[in-house]
Amino acid sequence: MPTILGQNQYGKAENRVVRVTRDGDTHHIKDLNVSVALSGEMEDVHYSGSNAHVLPTDTTKNTVFAFAKEHGIESAEQFGIHLARHFVTSQEPIKQARIRIEEYAWDRIATSDANSRFIGSDEVNHSFVRRNQEIRTAQITFDGEKWQVISGLKDLTVLNSTNSEFWGYVKDKYTTLKEAYDRILATDVSARWRYNWTSDEQRMPNWEKSYEQARKHMLHAFAETYSLSLQQTLYQMGSRIINSRSEIDEIRFSLPNNHHFLVDLEPFGLKNDNEVYFAADRPYGLIEGTVLRDGVEPQIPVDMTNL
Amino acid sequence: MPTILGQNQYGKAENRVVRVTRDGDTHHIKDLNVSVALSGEMEDVHYSGSNAHVLPTDTTKNTVFAFAKEHGIESAEQFGIHLARHFVTSQEPIKQARIRIEEYAWDRIATSDANSRFIGSDEVNHSFVRRNQEIRTAQITFDGEKWQVISGLKDLTVLNSTNSEFWGYVKDKYTTLKEAYDRILATDVSARWRYNWTSDEQRMPNWEKSYEQARKHMLHAFAETYSLSLQQTLYQMGSRIINSRSEIDEIRFSLPNNHHFLVDLEPFGLKNDNEVYFAADRPYGLIEGTVLRDGVEPQIPVDMTNL
Amino acid sequence: MPTILGQNQYGKAENRVVRVTRDGDTHHIKDLNVSVALSGEMEDVHYSGSNAHVLPTDTTKNTVFAFAKEHGIESAEQFGIHLARHFVTSQEPIKQARIRIEEYAWDRIATSDANSRFIGSDEVNHSFVRRNQEIRTAQITFDGEKWQVISGLKDLTVLNSTNSEFWGYVKDKYTTLKEAYDRILATDVSARWRYNWTSDEQRMPNWEKSYEQARKHMLHAFAETYSLSLQQTLYQMGSRIINSRSEIDEIRFSLPNNHHFLVDLEPFGLKNDNEVYFAADRPYGLIEGTVLRDGVEPQIPVDMTNL
Amino acid sequence: MPTILGQNQYGKAENRVVRVTRDGDTHHIKDLNVSVALSGEMEDVHYSGSNAHVLPTDTTKNTVFAFAKEHGIESAEQFGIHLARHFVTSQEPIKQARIRIEEYAWDRIATSDANSRFIGSDEVNHSFVRRNQEIRTAQITFDGEKWQVISGLKDLTVLNSTNSEFWGYVKDKYTTLKEAYDRILATDVSARWRYNWTSDEQRMPNWEKSYEQARKHMLHAFAETYSLSLQQTLYQMGSRIINSRSEIDEIRFSLPNNHHFLVDLEPFGLKNDNEVYFAADRPYGLIEGTVLRDGVEPQIPVDMTNL
Repeated sequence: MPTILGQNQYGKAENRVVRVTRDGDTHHIKDLNVSVALSGEMEDVHYSGSNAHVLPTDTTKNTVFAFAKEHGIESAEQFGIHLARHFVTSQEPIKQARIRIEEYAWDRIATSDANSRFIGSDEVNHSFVRRNQEIRTAQITFDGEKWQVISGLKDLTVLNSTNSEFWGYVKDKYTTLKEAYDRILATDVSARWRYNWTSDEQRMPNWEKSYEQARKHMLHAFAETYSLSLQQTLYQMGSRIINSRSEIDEIRFSLPNNHHFLVDLEPFGLKNDNEVYFAADRPYGLIEGTVLRDGVEPQIPVDMTNL
Repeated sequence: MPTILGQNQYGKAENRVVRVTRDGDTHHIKDLNVSVALSGEMEDVHYSGSNAHVLPTDTTKNTVFAFAKEHGIESAEQFGIHLARHFVTSQEPIKQARIRIEEYAWDRIATSDANSRFIGSDEVNHSFVRRNQEIRTAQITFDGEKWQVISGLKDLTVLNSTNSEFWGYVKDKYTTLKEAYDRILATDVSARWRYNWTSDEQRMPNWEKSYEQARKHMLHAFAETYSLSLQQTLYQMGSRIINSRSEIDEIRFSLPNNHHFLVDLEPFGLKNDNEVYFAADRPYGLIEGTVLRDGVEPQIPVDMTNL
Repeated sequence: MPTILGQNQYGKAENRVVRVTRDGDTHHIKDLNVSVALSGEMEDVHYSGSNAHVLPTDTTKNTVFAFAKEHGIESAEQFGIHLARHFVTSQEPIKQARIRIEEYAWDRIATSDANSRFIGSDEVNHSFVRRNQEIRTAQITFDGEKWQVISGLKDLTVLNSTNSEFWGYVKDKYTTLKEAYDRILATDVSARWRYNWTSDEQRMPNWEKSYEQARKHMLHAFAETYSLSLQQTLYQMGSRIINSRSEIDEIRFSLPNNHHFLVDLEPFGLKNDNEVYFAADRPYGLIEGTVLRDGVEPQIPVDMTNL
Repeated sequence: MPTILGQNQYGKAENRVVRVTRDGDTHHIKDLNVSVALSGEMEDVHYSGSNAHVLPTDTTKNTVFAFAKEHGIESAEQFGIHLARHFVTSQEPIKQARIRIEEYAWDRIATSDANSRFIGSDEVNHSFVRRNQEIRTAQITFDGEKWQVISGLKDLTVLNSTNSEFWGYVKDKYTTLKEAYDRILATDVSARWRYNWTSDEQRMPNWEKSYEQARKHMLHAFAETYSLSLQQTLYQMGSRIINSRSEIDEIRFSLPNNHHFLVDLEPFGLKNDNEVYFAADRPYGLIEGTVLRDGVEPQIPVDMTNL
């Protein structure tokens, strides 16, 4: 046979599981989108169609929902660890499991202000509004021995209305751009960071706290960097996280440069003193890069931040 | 000629204007997506292609950006009023202008907490993160005499994890649904409300405050209504606004019923005590309706909340 | 009670039904997305939450799937007529039904060419590839007496690489656009046309043939019109259909002007002789209009082509 | 410094270039979306913000449009080769260029049928309708010595209404799926194939013909495979291409299993003899895999088919 099978995986993608936990009248919700990808001894199903090694994708879906009950959802990462361990340890032909999760955050609807004359605030602790500011991501991979956890976020849109310049660049025959000494810098942050937790022997990070802190450091670095290039801002965002969070060894970003072009108002006899901008869609600059703790091997794939 | 021209309009859609205002070191931003639609004496351009009455859509785009400088953007509504008045009063053939605006809210990036040892908080008042919780909308129509302002929001996702029932409904030969006495009620609110301000003689509402209050009343009514049907919740949301805000006479909602189905875990020997749900995409129930101040004529079109 | 209920409707939206019909080994498929909206005596469910008049949206979903079996799907329009008639005539409180349908076309995968040495062509008459060129739409409304059928299409993208000009327009102080004597004209056609079939007494149009013919006339008129404005092209497209199809009385279009800007290559010492264009996303001109058979009353709502 | 820079790249993404070529009255169009990613000696711009090695993303955009004039667009692949070679050979610090291209196909609008009484068919050879059936993709990478060309397509939706089974799979405690002996098999094909052309010394493939043939073989294999699993179909599609096209050494697929669930019509007293299906959105099975010519090293990244 002149062709052979290479890397392959299968599973049920985008299982939308919502878990409600009741603490008396106070409800908590976790809202996840869970995708399962299994791989192992799967030659036969590709070559002949024999499903003897195939746990159905429908079963992987059922497992997601059953585990939401059996283990609860403490965090996306912890939930993914339960699932990955289960598939690899319970099915002989399955040698590796990769769980990808998106998490949607919800805030409580506050009704306790003075204008709310209808009911007491304690009665609405079951009401939520989706936050939508970013989508949190987690990817958990297990091969029976080692763990890899890569968390992150996407669609977090940020903007500095000043403290950004761009000049001193290479000019060739196709260069027409004018240098800028005060521009808007805006991007939709997509970031993935890898934890150095790889074994059940190690103490597990506090996934929830680590996420909040990584997100905070990223935002602060974006806000506080006087930027001469988006690459410089990227590196500051990454190194701030590596330096502040010992549990994180590597982080990768995709940062589209959401161009805000100063509108030429001179034809109308108006001066545009960095006040009126056109927010462009396409094309956009795209700045991508990895920041690493010195001495560690990079593992986050180049395109992971584009998923 | 056996065919004639009916209603028609034209203009530049989706002008993405961002306006930065500097209050010393503190910057403010307004981020709008503005669509212009003009109508009037436009038979010739349709019948013969004569553009003698046509102000180019490119010019309407330029006007949006120029007005962001000339008038600033106090609110989406006020900005739309400036634009609509200009087109109708400055071009003889244009008899009506309709300005549609989407507004994207931004929050400041807070860096003043104790962990931010890098810079003082006053230095980052030019840094923003997009809120994304909902999209604010405004539609301003002017015919040279009367104003119509319809504001609203869309994509505001809310969820009650209890206090919702559904039973006592009609059963026919195609009915299989089981009655529910404790279900999740979730929806993506799309709402449009009409102001009773119609003339320059009247005192203009405070558009920003009115929006914040309408949004708040909607959320409170959603949270505080013990719901026997999504229609009941819709009516409560609408009447709360009409009763609380004298400047608003009419409101229309499109409320998809974002079904959260309780997963049957019995095959796995597990009890699902309203804990684990499957969040479905399609199909979804769609509940739409208008709530009016008694005695007023409805004006909001049936499909406006689906735009 | 100072507030009252206005127009309201409810039902199950986006029921994705696929119907396979077997004609021996030759299979046929119809692929629809069906949305049901019912209205009638629905005050109670809004005011008090009583569902005594409410046929559940779940039941309307079941009915869609059951009718695909009971009646088959001859055409989107005919299928909608079956559904609308059923809801209005079988439930006393339901006074009007509106069925909206999107249809996705599929082509057969041709395998009969000489390179297909594997099997005979007759064996693959169950294999399809989705066409995707446009989405076909239909809306059927019934109030127990009169029918209204509005069919159409959307997302049909067309382009003329010449035979389009734009000049002779109004110039005001915000006008900077240069006149164009040879430009690209491109748009995504969204059209809705209304049939004059309104009663069971009348002979029903051949919905499938009428769609194909309306689509063809639209494309031909777009291709064959030497355009001085997109409005002129719109009118030609509409009047061609009205003049050619006696069963259609009214048609409305939304035609975004998909701008293709000639790129200025002079800075690079190159001449751009209408060869290289930048295809822009936003903003875009938006030209909307209705063409009517002389003497008929317009019924298609202004925003229907934006749904 | 405890952190270091890892893999990084930058450039202008999503340049929408449309190229019109005139062959007398007959026009031809190429419609591309081109993304440039450059990498090389870029430490300084990340560490200090110095742009001394940075060719602006704006310049890479200009180059795309200028090259559309200078070189024309023979094929997406050939165009990408021109661009990649230019960036790597003209700028010392740039060591690698990766060009990603999406191509949108257009068909001519045929107006030559008997119903077209308006003009002769030769006058409309400048009129096009976008095909939309799939998006063609190409990725060209050059490091100054070796070329890598990975072409492909996405969003090609196909369906077999029979000749698909699924049974004989593993059953664990979470398995509830019933075996299927006649089911719909449907998927949105995303495929990427790698050419063994890697050097200017080799004869270059005919990119246009190779694409058409690869696409054809894929469709035929999908249609002609009696499928016991989607994995089997995937392997047949891949090996058919490798066996038929000597210029292609490797192909990777992502094939979502677009579930079509047979609707249970028994509650309504109806028998569903594989006639009426519910087309589900999420979750979906996701089958991914690489097929290789025996003896070659795989190079296509795992997630490339998910971009």
